[in-house]
Parts: sequence; structure tokens; C-alpha cells
Amino acid sequence: MTLVIINPNTSTPMSERIGASARRAAHGDVHMLTSRHGPASLEGHMDEALAVPGLLERIHECEQDDSLAVSGYLIACFGDPGLAAARELASVPVLGMAEAGMHMASLVSARYSIVTTLARTLPIAERLLGEYGQREHCAGLHACELPVAALEEESDAIYRTLLEACRQALDSDASDGLLLGCAGMTDLATRLGDTLGVPVIDGVTAGVTLLESLERLGLTPAKHHDRALPLAKPIAGAFAHLTRSDA
Amino acid sequence: MTLVIINPNTSTPMSERIGASARRAAHGDVHMLTSRHGPASLEGHMDEALAVPGLLERIHECEQDDSLAVSGYLIACFGDPGLAAARELASVPVLGMAEAGMHMASLVSARYSIVTTLARTLPIAERLLGEYGQREHCAGLHACELPVAALEEESDAIYRTLLEACRQALDSDASDGLLLGCAGMTDLATRLGDTLGVPVIDGVTAGVTLLESLERLGLTPAKHHDRALPLAKPIAGAFAHLTRSDA
Amino acid sequence: MTLVIINPNTSTPMSERIGASARRAAHGDVHMLTSRHGPASLEGHMDEALAVPGLLERIHECEQDDSLAVSGYLIACFGDPGLAAARELASVPVLGMAEAGMHMASLVSARYSIVTTLARTLPIAERLLGEYGQREHCAGLHACELPVAALEEESDAIYRTLLEACRQALDSDASDGLLLGCAGMTDLATRLGDTLGVPVIDGVTAGVTLLESLERLGLTPAKHHDRALPLAKPIAGAFAHLTRSDA
Amino acid sequence: MTLVIINPNTSTPMSERIGASARRAAHGDVHMLTSRHGPASLEGHMDEALAVPGLLERIHECEQDDSLAVSGYLIACFGDPGLAAARELASVPVLGMAEAGMHMASLVSARYSIVTTLARTLPIAERLLGEYGQREHCAGLHACELPVAALEEESDAIYRTLLEACRQALDSDASDGLLLGCAGMTDLATRLGDTLGVPVIDGVTAGVTLLESLERLGLTPAKHHDRALPLAKPIAGAFAHLTRSDA
Amino acid sequence: MTLVIINPNTSTPMSERIGASARRAAHGDVHMLTSRHGPASLEGHMDEALAVPGLLERIHECEQDDSLAVSGYLIACFGDPGLAAARELASVPVLGMAEAGMHMASLVSARYSIVTTLARTLPIAERLLGEYGQREHCAGLHACELPVAALEEESDAIYRTLLEACRQALDSDASDGLLLGCAGMTDLATRLGDTLGVPVIDGVTAGVTLLESLERLGLTPAKHHDRALPLAKPIAGAFAHLTRSDA
Amino acid sequence: MTLVIINPNTSTPMSERIGASARRAAHGDVHMLTSRHGPASLEGHMDEALAVPGLLERIHECEQDDSLAVSGYLIACFGDPGLAAARELASVPVLGMAEAGMHMASLVSARYSIVTTLARTLPIAERLLGEYGQREHCAGLHACELPVAALEEESDAIYRTLLEACRQALDSDASDGLLLGCAGMTDLATRLGDTLGVPVIDGVTAGVTLLESLERLGLTPAKHHDRALPLAKPIAGAFAHLTRSDA
Repeated sequence: MTLVIINPNTSTPMSERIGASARRAAHGDVHMLTSRHGPASLEGHMDEALAVPGLLERIHECEQDDSLAVSGYLIACFGDPGLAAARELASVPVLGMAEAGMHMASLVSARYSIVTTLARTLPIAERLLGEYGQREHCAGLHACELPVAALEEESDAIYRTLLEACRQALDSDASDGLLLGCAGMTDLATRLGDTLGVPVIDGVTAGVTLLESLERLGLTPAKHHDRALPLAKPIAGAFAHLTRSDA
Repeated sequence: MTLVIINPNTSTPMSERIGASARRAAHGDVHMLTSRHGPASLEGHMDEALAVPGLLERIHECEQDDSLAVSGYLIACFGDPGLAAARELASVPVLGMAEAGMHMASLVSARYSIVTTLARTLPIAERLLGEYGQREHCAGLHACELPVAALEEESDAIYRTLLEACRQALDSDASDGLLLGCAGMTDLATRLGDTLGVPVIDGVTAGVTLLESLERLGLTPAKHHDRALPLAKPIAGAFAHLTRSDA
Repeated sequence: MTLVIINPNTSTPMSERIGASARRAAHGDVHMLTSRHGPASLEGHMDEALAVPGLLERIHECEQDDSLAVSGYLIACFGDPGLAAARELASVPVLGMAEAGMHMASLVSARYSIVTTLARTLPIAERLLGEYGQREHCAGLHACELPVAALEEESDAIYRTLLEACRQALDSDASDGLLLGCAGMTDLATRLGDTLGVPVIDGVTAGVTLLESLERLGLTPAKHHDRALPLAKPIAGAFAHLTRSDA
Repeated sequence: MTLVIINPNTSTPMSERIGASARRAAHGDVHMLTSRHGPASLEGHMDEALAVPGLLERIHECEQDDSLAVSGYLIACFGDPGLAAARELASVPVLGMAEAGMHMASLVSARYSIVTTLARTLPIAERLLGEYGQREHCAGLHACELPVAALEEESDAIYRTLLEACRQALDSDASDGLLLGCAGMTDLATRLGDTLGVPVIDGVTAGVTLLESLERLGLTPAKHHDRALPLAKPIAGAFAHLTRSDA
Repeated sequence: MTLVIINPNTSTPMSERIGASARRAAHGDVHMLTSRHGPASLEGHMDEALAVPGLLERIHECEQDDSLAVSGYLIACFGDPGLAAARELASVPVLGMAEAGMHMASLVSARYSIVTTLARTLPIAERLLGEYGQREHCAGLHACELPVAALEEESDAIYRTLLEACRQALDSDASDGLLLGCAGMTDLATRLGDTLGVPVIDGVTAGVTLLESLERLGLTPAKHHDRALPLAKPIAGAFAHLTRSDA
Repeated sequence: MTLVIINPNTSTPMSERIGASARRAAHGDVHMLTSRHGPASLEGHMDEALAVPGLLERIHECEQDDSLAVSGYLIACFGDPGLAAARELASVPVLGMAEAGMHMASLVSARYSIVTTLARTLPIAERLLGEYGQREHCAGLHACELPVAALEEESDAIYRTLLEACRQALDSDASDGLLLGCAGMTDLATRLGDTLGVPVIDGVTAGVTLLESLERLGLTPAKHHDRALPLAKPIAGAFAHLTRSDA
């Protein structure tokens, strides 16, 4: 069995960073995939909207591939784009990294702060807090104003900017935990946590351990109601190849 | 100035029905467009996800087209797919038909019932009620279990099924208004209202009058925060042509 | 058919200003009425309470007047005084200007600020936000501390005070829209919008276009439950003439 | 010092019943007043709206009357009409009987049921539950469909109808307390409680003991913000005599 | 009949102070008890957890004592520790002092501030606000950072520290009432209220008058559902003597 | 490193059952402890209150024991008794089994049902749903009316009763997942899941995998605010031995 992690943006360096971090957290195999369609980074509603079909294409391919025994999928972008759609398509659990990170953060802190990339993405995180029942557990949402692309590679300047934003968030929120709001921050969590003296949660590694937990507990979704397979029907245009064979 | 109405599924008969209804409601011009990409009907999360890029492509084309003076866009599917993304892209107001219908229903009834197509779409409508602040104004969400495709053409059997579902909803909810939950029901609202003796609201025509109201009041969006234009960046694959020219 | 707009305070200059603004927004006829009973301006709970019977008397007169074909009523005070009572009495739609303005503001901005007159009225607006499902759409409630009476006539000093309050509200709330919180501000919306670069919504003109939308869509209330006609019973004292003829 | 209880409808038999019940609950003096203006019973929004000025007139008279030392006012109608306005006008505490009853019910039961008169008044009680923070403490709202006028005099038939409605409410809600939703039920609470084996709370007597508690604790309102005295300004028409002398 | 007030911490000076204040507020008898088990002051979750069995032991003793006719119990610590458990055990009403104080504060102020002891107890008060439906009535929660032990005896320095914290709370919250968040502050309420010009509510005296109100109204709990007597079963260890005789 | 699981009731057969199930779920060591104080089963508020000091005593012992390297604590009772207090005392993560089960259930189902033991415990679970942000994820709370003691040993009759209650819950709630509401059900989850075709979540095993996830991610609590160590102070009576050595 293997975990599949999908980077819904099209940046390969970002995927490498995510994959390495995920493998360090996993007990079992990790299969890292990158979307072939959409923006190089996701920093807004349209970026996300354009990224989702490529993400679904990847899940569709995995579901068709008999050589793969997928135990679960993780969507490695903090906006959890396409999560509900992916859950229709997949026969095994699917988690979003914001979902994973928020739940995990609530288990180890009374009220956590979130530090994400650009301010324009804050309403996306705000909506997710509501959806996952986390409004009262989150003490504050902050942007460090680093673009996602800046997080593709390691850099000391980047680390210091992020560290400073984290410090300010902890201060202003009087919080006792930090959730990082971008997949590109995944391998900075431990270093930040050691420096800041509070648990620093990253959604990628949180998602890996949660999916492995679900596998260990033998929990698979029921495919009922709005999580049943998409109905068979013609699909036109760019993603016509995602049409069900029985449509 | 012209209103642009976009059917985000790829069914032309459906678009014709929507366009005719919209024109009856409008004071001014209506430009009716159909998406070129995605499923023939939208009845779930994946259907919607695959429909959104084609919808955005249509808005992108209108925004580039100097021969068009668009006063506003209406997304003619009750799940309001792609609404937030469309609002980034467009320079003028964008409404979803669920959004329009829910607000209008709350103005003319104390508590309205919603009757939509398949039960699997109910969680989508439920989420929208929350987003638009309508949870306390909506008395109940109901599915008539007609597939969207059945609503492409007029039919007496279809009307009777829908009428019966509406009657049951009014009874069980003790409500005083009905909101129809599919663009394909747009031209049945008046007939249903005459029979049922309560206001029956349709989101397509509601959206047309609301967009014309915004135009008359001279209200255009500020393009700030998460409604600013999408950032310039490379877009790969199927929708690469939506890349901003300055990216 | 004519729209009836009722100023529930007894200031005729205010009514003239409201009527002129409403007529500019309307496609059809506007009938402007002023209450004969109550305070000269409404700036608190008691002011509103004393104004409501006079407002209801006006609606009662219109409903009895066979020479009038009323398509809808608008209550032109930002506290929406007497709205629920008016909806019992009237056979056609009734809107409050706060209700109209809040809904319209939510359609054209992500999160709007409200700037109203005196701070003592803020709890009234706060309650209305809750009633109309607008708590999450409103970014902040602000008082410019101009009394309503100051808004009876045009004045540059008044405009500059209001402009400054709007600017501060937009800054402190990081909002992308403004809703004006007094009927006396109705004709300043466009000028403020042009200066501030965000949509500035006025509830009077918003209400006019919404009532005309309801008329165009053929939507009339069902007169059920708590919107049924008031029961026939004796009414004593000052408003005995509002007793139903069958009581 | 005396408590003032005001019946905001104009029915003297009702006032006598309320006054007798209040006197049995009070340690000190009770001054029972009836409004001179408005409907003979309050069963809807318009009934309430027309009753409020008469209620305020009574409070105004008491405030002007140097021979009276009022310790607090109780509004003896379950819709708590005019409560916010009365709090502006009065220099001492004002309670509504629904407010008093709901708070007291939450102290002696885990989840209480409410049984009121006509179904058309349920939305009024529903709104008050929200305002007083009682939505989660109330297990259900029920109408016994007795008009208020039927409760003016004692009658066995009336008692049995009410008893049956209470029984059904307790059953269907699995609740452990009952709140009576009409001032006309005030003297039936004890008898109902003895029969039903759960605490049966009446807002009139609850209000009397709460106002006496406030007096004993020396707690008087601060007259700040929206509870400050109404501003001095001209009042026209029927209630011109309520104009402040300094206006 | 006598009221029983239980100090759930083991400090006798604190109990004396509470008892004296309670007796000044009460019409009838007050029986003041101190727990024999647990911390000398309650300033956190563990302090409270260790205090609850001793509190329950006291109630158990009173319930067994045929020489006592208890009309109600008051838990005299602002965290309301053990309230739900006490309600199972007792045959008469039980109130917590935070519960009593919050309800009373909401009756005499539009929005009250709370000033309590140490910041680490704020989440406890925050949870209680939610439980009692008081989130919207409370304008702010503040710690004066005085430990509970400092409040065992009267002292001018203590009074001035508390006064200053109250002043700041009123200012920053724009509130019109103050609720004191510690039983040790019970006899400072009147002096603070006289100085500050707003009602200052203390939960001990509020609880006394509320329990006496319940007694006067003849309201006793129904002992249903989660307020039924604890089930008969063996209890091991330190509190084995609380085992029901029929277990 | 070892996980410590504490059964807060005093039933050793129950602990054996819990321990065996936990060991099957764990990668690492599991140390199973039983409380020495309190009721033999926890089925109400008082049962829980009496159980908490014994639970805290166990954590205190582990924290003092240098031979133990504890990675986390799990409270193995569905009411999560003493969770906040335990978090003050412990230097490593503490989870409640309801908390663990609810979060895990929300990851693998859209809306889950809960089936617990006696109806009198439902308000406890209801409160926890609110605390953990799970109100909208839980579709319904049900009691199978089996006492906790019946779950100490395996039995076919017990299994069938529980199975039937689960079936009814899934039907009436239209849910797609089940959460078991008692530690004594821990080893029935897999069998129930296989039969029912939906994921059946057990909080004990969920808690084990979540604590191991936190360990793997290196996340430990910050010991700030209301999770800081209890203050040093004298503790009297039965649990005096829990007094801090520096008090």
C-alpha cells in the first residue's frame, strides 16, 4: 500500500520538497505526484479553480492503475482545493493539508495561530476554518506576504521572514501553537518549533500520519450521498478523458 | 451595456431555455453563453470542479473582447460554481443564481423552502446557505430526484413531479416561499407560483434583476483583497491560454 | 403601479431629499409619504417605537385607497422600524432600507463597512445584521456622530465629515464596500463612491430597485403565518382608527 | 419603593389577573397599570407595535410622578414589546416577562419547553430566545392555539386545553421544565406544576422576584450608550405629550 | 428552610467573607460550608477538578441530614465547579455563582465586562459564557492578576488594584456593567459600584437572591434525564462513602 | 517511549479489554492503567466528577516516575473526564477518546452518527461536540441503553443490541460513518464496520494512532496559559499527596 500525495500546482521543485518531507514522516511508501495543468503556484480563487481538474486527473489515473495499491490521497496545498470532488472520485480516504493541520493543531494546543503566504489567500483559510469546525480553536490568521514561489527552495532570508511573522502571530494572538499555511513551508516546521518553543504544525506531515492512522484503523469511506462516485455522463473539452467508461 | 449569463454545463438546450427566461426578465440586453468544457450537467462536486475552468474561459473572453460592454455576469447553475474565481477575473459584478435567488427569497418570504434536483447536491446548497447568511431564512432543503438533464426540455410529467415536491416542501416546512434549485426550472417559477399561492423564486431571473439593479445604482466592485485580479504567473496544460499576458 | 416610500420620521425636508433620490433610481412611479406622528428624527429605541404607529397608519391608508395601485413599500429609515408589523398589514412586498442596503452590499463587496449617524443607534444596526444573516458580511459598524437632523439639507461640511468617517472605516476594517446608515445620506452615495473608489451603497435607492425587481418577477408575499393580516380586534386610544372594520 | 407592572394591552380583566398574581409573588408593593392605547390583546407584530407608545406613556408618567418611588418596571406581555425603548426612558431596571421567564427557566431546568397562545406569535418568541441567549436552553416552542382573550378569566376548559398542550410539549421535547408564554396564564403555573411534576415557570412572577432581587442588590442601570435617555427633540401627533420638556 | 452556600476551596477565611456577604443579601437563613478536600484556592482546571468531590461530599451530607431543610445550594467559586454533578445529587435547585452573576448582569446592563483573578482562569469563564448563552451579553473578559488568596482579607491595596482593572475594562469594552469574577470579591461590589457609576454584580449575592426567588416561586427541579439521581454503583477509594446505600 | 492509557473507572476487566484493543492499534508500547478511586463505571456527571482525581493521581505518578518515558496520555472514557486538568499536569500530549474519535470520524465521513450507552450521558457528548467544533459533522447522537458494565465482557447479545442501534442511527441520520460512544465498545468497531459497510470509529484506537502521530511529528504542548502546570499551593484531604513539592 502507498500513500499518494498530490501537489496541485505545477512546480516540480515544490513537489520535491513536499515529497522529501512527507517521506520523513511516513512509516510506509509515499508516491509524490505533480499536476500537469494549471498555475505554477496557488494564491487565489482562480489559481485554485484552474488547478483542480489537473488534481482530479491524477486521482483518476491512480484509481485506474491496477499496479498501485493506494491507501489514501493527500492534497498538498493549504487551500485544500478540490477536496470534495476528490472524495467523490477516490475509493480511499482523501485529506486536505489544511484539514489535517487544523485538526492536529487543535489536539496539541489550546488556540493556534496560522501563518500563511499572501493576504489575498486569507479568506480561503477563513472559510476552511468554518468548514472544519475550527473557528474557536484558531486564535488568528496571518500573512507573511511571501509568495508561494519563494518557498520552492531553502533560503535563510525566507526562514527569517517566516520566523518573524510567527513570533508576531504568537504575541498578538496569545496562542500556544502555530500552523504553517503553505506546503512549501513543510520542512521548516521542526526548526521553527525548536526556536519558538511552541508546537509548529505542518499540514503535509500531519496529513501523512493521519492517512496512515486511517489505514491502520482499517477505516475507508462509505461512498454514500455526496461522496458517491460521480454520475456517468458525457464530459466535453479539455477533460473529456475523465468521462466514465460507462457514460 | 449587456448582461452576460453563462451556463457552466455544456448543454445547449439548457442554455436556450435559460436565455429565453432571462430575456423575459431583463430590461436590457442579455448575452447567453455556454461553456465548452466539462460535464453535460452539474450534479456533484466533481461535475462542478470540471465545469469551472470552462466558465472562467468564457469570462476571460468577454473581458478581452472590446466589442462587448458587459454590465455583469450571472453564473446559471444553482451550485454557484466558480463564483469566487470569477469575481477575481471580472471587472464588473458577478452573481451566482443561488446567491441571487436566496437573497430575493428572503425579501419576499419569512422562511422559504428550496426544491432542487438530486439529493447528492444538497450539501452544496447547504454550504451556500451558510456562506450567504441564509441558514435561518431557509426552512428546508429538498430534492425532487429529477436529474438536471430531464429539465432541458418542457414536459408535463416533469412539471407535475416538481409541483408535487414543492407542495410537500411547503407542507413539511410550514414555509411561505419556494426557491427553485436548478437553472433548468427557470421558466416554471411563474406557473408554480400561480398554482401554489406562494412566491416561487427562480435564481436566473432574480440574478438578472439584481445585476440590472447594481448597474442602475452604478455599483461596481473595488477589486481589492481576494477580489483583485489573479496574479500574473505561468499556467500550464489545458488552460495555458488563460495566462495573463504580463506573466 | 407605484412604489410607496415612507419616511417614518416627521421631517418634510428629509422626505423631499429621500423622494428625489428614490425617483432618480426608479423606473416607475414613486409616491413619497411622511409620517404624521412621532419624533422629527429617529436616533434610538424610543424614537423608533413612537414612529411606528404613524408609519403603519400611512400603510393602512394606502391599503384602503382604491385609487392607488401599490407595488411595494419601502421604510426609509436605517433602523427598519416597524418592518414586521408593516408586513402583516400590507398585501404587497415591504422592505426596510437597511435590509435592502445590506443585501445589496453583500452582492458587490466581500465585506462592507457601515457608517451611520450617532453611536447610540449602533446596537439597532447590529441587531439587524443578525436578523438578515449579514454578520459575516459586515466588516465593521461605525458612527460619524452627525445627528440625523444635520442631514436634512446638503452641506459641504457635512459631506466632508461623512467622507472622513468612511475613509477611516475602510482603513480600519480592510473592507471593500461601504453602506450608508441613514436615509438622509441617500444622495451622497455616488459622490462618495467616486471619491473613495469602492462601491458605496445607499439603502433607499437599493430598496427602490429591489422592490421594482420583485414587481418585475411577479413576486408577492403569501400572507401566511406571522405575515397574515392582523387579527380583527378592538384598538383603543390614539390609533383606534386602525381597527379593522370587521372587528 | 414599589414595583410597577404594566399590561401593554388594554384589557382591564387581564390586568387584574396579572396584578393579583404579581402581588402573591412580591415581598413589597406592586403598582399595576394598564395601557390606554392599542389593541385589547397582543397577538402579532402590529398588535405589539400599536401597544408600545401606550406602554411608554405609562412609564413616562411614572417617571414624572414624584409621589411614586419606583424600584423597577415589568412589561407583562410575553413578546416583551417596547423593552429597549422602555429602558431608555426609565431610570430604574425594566424587565420583560419573557426575558424574566426564560432566564429563570434556565436556572431550574436543563431544557425547557415554551407553550404560548397562537402559532402566529411563535416567531416573536423565537427572536427573543436568540436575543437573550436562550436558543440552546429552550427545547421547543409550542402554540396551544388559545387566543389571549380566552385567558382573561379563569375557566376549567381553558385549563385543560393548556394542560394538554403542556403535556405534549414535555413529551415531544423530552424537556424538564415548562415556560408559560402569556401573561394571562400567570396564575395557572402552580397548578400545572403540581400536576405535571416539572417546574412550570411564569414570566410575571419570575419578573417580580427578579426585579426585587435587583433592588435588594442595589443594582440600577448606568444610562449609557443605547440606554441613555432619549434625545430631546420635537414629537408630533398623537404622542406629542411625550416630548421632553427641554426639547 | 435554609440556603446552603458551599465554598469549594478549603480556605476558612474566604468562607467567612462569603458567608457574611451572603447573609446581608438573604431574606432567610444561610448555612455556609467549606470543603474539606482540595486546594486552598481554585485557579485552574486541576484545582477545580480536585475540589469537586469535596463539594459533592458536602451536598451529600446535607441531603442525608434530616435536621436540615435546604431550599437550594450555591457553589461559591466563579468557575462553577461541579455544577452538573451537584444537580444530579441535590433534590433542590443548585446554582453556580458565575451562572447567577451572568444572568443578573444581563438583566441590568446591555453589555457587561467581567474582571476576574488570574489570566489562566479566563478560558474557564469563556466556556461558561457559552454554556449559559451569555457570549453576546459579555463585552470582555479581564484578569486583574490578583491571586485568589489575596482576596481572603480586606485590604485597600487590593481594592485599588481591582478598581483600576474595572475602570480599564469599562473603558476598553465600552460596557455598562461589571461582573466580579471571584467569590473573594463579593463584598466589594457595592463600593465599586458607587465609585464607578455602573452596576457592579457579584455572583454570590446574585445567587442568594435567585435561589430565594426560586423558593418563593415554588420551583424545584424535575430530576429527569441528566439531572436524575446518580445511578447506584460501587465507588472505590477516597470517596467510597459517597456510594448510594442501595448500590 | 510508551503511551499511557488510563481507564478512569475502576473496573479492571474493562481496562483489560481497552488495553488489548489499544495494543493492536499501536506501533509502540502501551502502558494500561486503571484508576483506584471512583465509580465502577461512568454514566453521569457525578460519576465523572468522582473519577477525575483518581485519573489525575495516575498522571501525577507517571510524571514523577523517572523509569517511564511517556509519549502521551489517553483518557479512555467517552466523556473525556478531566481532560483540561490532565493537560495542566502532563508535560506531553493528552487526548480524550471522544476528542480523538470525533476528529477521526470527521476525516473519513461527511456526517457521522454517535451511538453511546445510556441516554443520561447524551448531554455530555453534546457538550463535547461543541467544544471540539464537531456540531455540524455529527448527524445524530443515540443511546443504545446498554449500561457500561454490560460492555466489560464480550457477548453476542450485547453485540446484536449495539448493531441494531447502529443500524437505526445510520438510517435515521442518513449518515455515512459511526462513532462508538464507550471505551467498552473498542474491540467491536471492526466487526460492526464489516457488517454495516460504513467506517465505524472507536475513540480508543483513534486516540492511540493520534498520539503516535503527535510523537512522530515531534509535537509537544507549550505549557502556556491555561495549560501551564498547576500553581503550587496546599491541597487538603483525600488528595493532599498531589500537592506540588514546592508548595
